[in-house]
Amino acid sequence: RITEKLNTLHPADIAYILESLPLDDRLFVWDLVKADSDGEILLEVSDAVRESLIESMAPAELVAAAEQLDADELADLAPDLPKQVMDDVYLGLDAEEREQLRAAMSYEEDAVGALMDFDMVTVREDVSLEVVLRYLRRFDELPDHTDLLFVIDREERMLGVLPLQRLLINDPDKLVGELMVTDMLCLHPADKADDAARAFERYDLVSAPVTDRDRRLIGRLTVADVVDYIREQSEADLLGQAGLREDEDIFASVWDSVKNRWAWLAVNLVTAFVASRVIGAFEGSIVKLVALAALMPIVAGIGGNAGNQTITMIVRAIAMDQLQPGMFQRLLRKELSLALLNGLVWGGLLGVLSIVLYHSWSLGLVLTAAMTLNLLLAAFMGVMIPMTMYRLGRDPAVGSSVLITACTDSGGFFIFLGLATLLLM
Amino acid sequence: RITEKLNTLHPADIAYILESLPLDDRLFVWDLVKADSDGEILLEVSDAVRESLIESMAPAELVAAAEQLDADELADLAPDLPKQVMDDVYLGLDAEEREQLRAAMSYEEDAVGALMDFDMVTVREDVSLEVVLRYLRRFDELPDHTDLLFVIDREERMLGVLPLQRLLINDPDKLVGELMVTDMLCLHPADKADDAARAFERYDLVSAPVTDRDRRLIGRLTVADVVDYIREQSEADLLGQAGLREDEDIFASVWDSVKNRWAWLAVNLVTAFVASRVIGAFEGSIVKLVALAALMPIVAGIGGNAGNQTITMIVRAIAMDQLQPGMFQRLLRKELSLALLNGLVWGGLLGVLSIVLYHSWSLGLVLTAAMTLNLLLAAFMGVMIPMTMYRLGRDPAVGSSVLITACTDSGGFFIFLGLATLLLM
Ligand SMILES: [Mg+2]
Ligand SMILES: [Mg+2]
Ligand SMILES: [Mg+2]
Ligand SMILES: [Mg+2]
Ligand SMILES: [Mg+2]
Ligand SMILES: [Mg+2]
Ligand SMILES: [Mg+2]
Ligand SMILES: [Mg+2]
Ligand SMILES: [Mg+2]
Ligand SMILES: [Mg+2]
Ligand SMILES: [Mg+2]
Ligand SMILES: [Mg+2]
Ligand SMILES: [Mg+2]
Repeated sequence: RITEKLNTLHPADIAYILESLPLDDRLFVWDLVKADSDGEILLEVSDAVRESLIESMAPAELVAAAEQLDADELADLAPDLPKQVMDDVYLGLDAEEREQLRAAMSYEEDAVGALMDFDMVTVREDVSLEVVLRYLRRFDELPDHTDLLFVIDREERMLGVLPLQRLLINDPDKLVGELMVTDMLCLHPADKADDAARAFERYDLVSAPVTDRDRRLIGRLTVADVVDYIREQSEADLLGQAGLREDEDIFASVWDSVKNRWAWLAVNLVTAFVASRVIGAFEGSIVKLVALAALMPIVAGIGGNAGNQTITMIVRAIAMDQLQPGMFQRLLRKELSLALLNGLVWGGLLGVLSIVLYHSWSLGLVLTAAMTLNLLLAAFMGVMIPMTMYRLGRDPAVGSSVLITACTDSGGFFIFLGLATLLLM
Repeated sequence: RITEKLNTLHPADIAYILESLPLDDRLFVWDLVKADSDGEILLEVSDAVRESLIESMAPAELVAAAEQLDADELADLAPDLPKQVMDDVYLGLDAEEREQLRAAMSYEEDAVGALMDFDMVTVREDVSLEVVLRYLRRFDELPDHTDLLFVIDREERMLGVLPLQRLLINDPDKLVGELMVTDMLCLHPADKADDAARAFERYDLVSAPVTDRDRRLIGRLTVADVVDYIREQSEADLLGQAGLREDEDIFASVWDSVKNRWAWLAVNLVTAFVASRVIGAFEGSIVKLVALAALMPIVAGIGGNAGNQTITMIVRAIAMDQLQPGMFQRLLRKELSLALLNGLVWGGLLGVLSIVLYHSWSLGLVLTAAMTLNLLLAAFMGVMIPMTMYRLGRDPAVGSSVLITACTDSGGFFIFLGLATLLLM
């Protein structure tokens, strides 16, 4: 029976199946799934699929699903749940869980506080490993990703961490205080998730404590949540480049897709219209020399392509935190040299081609010159746009591709048609 | 002293500093770093920086650095080391390490075998937890990311895994065989790293055994290597979209940058030239109605943008393994409806604008019709191109953006100028 089969699967596998199905089949399968893991499945599916599942559920089912979750997980689901459901769930929480929920929900989506959980195993520094081992045997299970025990004092202040591996390899008579690591990484809930993710990558961490300003332990971050964050971020980056937000799945309705895609198309329409008006200003020259109309998209297109290459390099360097303030001039010089080289080589090649096609030396020269100038413009803007966005505190990746293309299109038409009007008319 | 400061840093931090410095400063700092961690630092830095550091080192230094590494790490570094150095290092390995090195180097870069390490702690099923605990106390340290002990028989065949957490919470008199997990995920060295990474994400793993066809344990994969793989892949995807390969860092010489970027620019040049010839074929119409020259880039540009949105959605769905074969027609239908809607709305808007600007109803209608048709073409190719590449077994992300833009540029010019010639001349 398919139902039995389904219910032996891991919630993450069920989530994957639900994501791969169109809406009607998805809801059919969702009804077959036993309600016990509803909460976990809702956590695992993508935002768009989650929305569709929640819409299909009765309030009582939603409350039951939400009650299966820990406070940190509930905080992730909360924005998608109807208010009435959240109120019901909240009433069922004890004081500690309410405080955890409040804490988890009080941070930005890209802060450590929004990713942390509250599954810490804590020990005191003045006990022996033997005592710790006996203490652990009283647990029914340890939280996932427990590779560290947190050593705290009576005020819950972090003193250090005891890695399980030290607990295992050392003599049980030794004291926690002798063996604990005291220079561990402590995250703060307001730290950026990006920085925390980089720390996990660099130091190959499995979990890390999250502490407040007074070094009081309030939560922990695990590599599982970091991996999910990294994956979501890189997906959002890829989609963002094409002007898409993340909440469209491939089975979204036409209407949802329109909402997802219209903004970028509208911006593009405006920039295309501006470029069109630039051409319109040179209609007189085009009538006199119609070859200009055929050649102008080449100048604009190559400029856009080269500009996007530059901008991608710079955005990546900024994202990797590899751009020291002093490097700005050096980078600009390099990109400009590269543009000059490319302009002379590719522009020269096209110049020759156009001489062959249109039997005009001067037209070939104008084409080469225009391509070189537009590539220089592309390199300049390709460095300036992301650096400026960065200095203004904005995400340099979002929209930089539209901006550079707008510059190289309008700029390319203006440079080429302008040069032609000056030199050939 | 800066040298002392440097040598207290984690190798990954030193790698980060080296990556952020231009070549001359980088080599200066590299000389200050104590040689003990040279091997680990070389592993951590990006390919381009690694190359620059290796070039600056004497063979003896390289041999010393390589000798600090485990077999799996050596396999990662080997392709970048001079043959003479590798031969020297190889002579210093024992039989087991040579076999491990051979194994690690015999798999494709994107296979599990290339990411696995050999740091397994193994136990027998017929011993008690007490015995295991005593066995572990004899270690000086456990390998990083040891969350599982591997339970094997005398032929090294995997019987199960004993999670450390079960070892810790259970009565020491129990036997390993009673407590081990037997339905754990076993990877094979030829498995794709992408699939393994997805499994780590889905099941929130810290480590997983790698076994051969006879279920013999040959290695293990850890979440740290998975995280590095995910990050590298997503970076390569982002760079790939702009036609860049990963081995250019921001301080690369102009010449290295040229090598990195020229191929894509050349392809773009060819497609731009083709588009230019399409326009050339309609020069007669442009001379008669010069407004065509100003309006044609709008038709091409919006088409390219919409096509890139479609292709990004499809490429992502393929990458997430979410595209069932039967979904093809459904998707195509959806994208075509969306294109029709966009064409009528945005095309209609531009049509009205052009009527206002050029006082010609028929020109406005031609513009609206051409935009709609080009958006339909963009949607069709946006679905077909990645699906076809996927069926041919090629990576759908690479180059799909050039291809779609080539279609929508040449196609857009052809549709608009063709319609105009038919209807307005
Ligand atoms: Mg259900
Ligand atoms: Mg999300
Ligand atoms: Mg939890
Ligand atoms: Mg959260
Ligand atoms: Mg968690
Ligand atoms: Mg117990
Ligand atoms: Mg790492
Ligand atoms: Mg050195
Ligand atoms: Mg690499
Ligand atoms: Mg090692
Ligand atoms: Mg390897
Ligand atoms: Mg490793
Ligand atoms: Mg996960």
